[in-house]
Amino acid sequence: MTSAAAMDEDRVPFPAGEGAGRERCAGPRPVPPLHVSLITLGVADLRHSILFYEALGLQRRVRKAEGVAFFVAGPVVLSLYPRHELAADAGVVPGRAGQFGGVALACNRASRAEVDATLIRAVAAGGRALRPAQATFWGGYSGYVADPDGHAWEIAHNPGFLLGPDGRLTLPE
Amino acid sequence: MTSAAAMDEDRVPFPAGEGAGRERCAGPRPVPPLHVSLITLGVADLRHSILFYEALGLQRRVRKAEGVAFFVAGPVVLSLYPRHELAADAGVVPGRAGQFGGVALACNRASRAEVDATLIRAVAAGGRALRPAQATFWGGYSGYVADPDGHAWEIAHNPGFLLGPDGRLTLPE
Repeated sequence: MTSAAAMDEDRVPFPAGEGAGRERCAGPRPVPPLHVSLITLGVADLRHSILFYEALGLQRRVRKAEGVAFFVAGPVVLSLYPRHELAADAGVVPGRAGQFGGVALACNRASRAEVDATLIRAVAAGGRALRPAQATFWGGYSGYVADPDGHAWEIAHNPGFLLGPDGRLTLPE
Repeated sequence: MTSAAAMDEDRVPFPAGEGAGRERCAGPRPVPPLHVSLITLGVADLRHSILFYEALGLQRRVRKAEGVAFFVAGPVVLSLYPRHELAADAGVVPGRAGQFGGVALACNRASRAEVDATLIRAVAAGGRALRPAQATFWGGYSGYVADPDGHAWEIAHNPGFLLGPDGRLTLPE
């Protein structure tokens, strides 16, 4: 093997990893559709962020896991992890914190009053008001608040999406 | 009212909005815990991003909604929306796209082989490999891939978290 070939080998984006066991030899199997199981927010001060989310009613789980926090946030798990460690884990440059990262998490509510109450509670807990709640062009009602690290949360009421008791949405076809 | 008082009034982060109806007069009601119902990713090219997520097995829903895409991504809804419009909606400065936003979405899988297969499929669909899958210090196996806008996805197998058929996790206490 030439060194050039070796370099190419190194550049294979995802070479068969440790998980590639006997099953791979049976030929390609269908890959299940993508889904979201867990969301990790990179934070500057883990303890501070834990207090913020606890003030919003979330209960920490898996407490034996140190240096990270897990909460059940309705149908998914919300995880808090130091931003630099998250970046290192993902193999990316940490970048600047506190800026819009192009992602918004939405907490859907059963009524406009619950939207207001959630936004007020989030600000009382140390969140930063981004946009007051207002009627939206899509027939709903929503406002935005940022958590201590600037992660944007939309608190929304959407009469067109069926909302389950645990926050899970059912979309129309 | 002095103009200073008027300014203070203006600064109330979330004044009682349109949703604050009669219910508010009955006194404060408990606010349900925060949860995640929906995740919106800001994208540069909506059509391109729709094709990427469709290639990962997601089916677009609510097609009559123009300028936005909704998918059922397991237990939550994944939404794609132009990044600048998302920033405007949230009342924040759009910032620079393609950089780490301090958020990682995780798709948990039932096996290491499924982690590998998902990563390979994501790269084949136009995703960018961030970190190859490897055994993790927490006893699992994971790798990262970025979508066309740089949003980081962790594809993970965690034998310590019970995984439901729809991607929903059950955490130990």
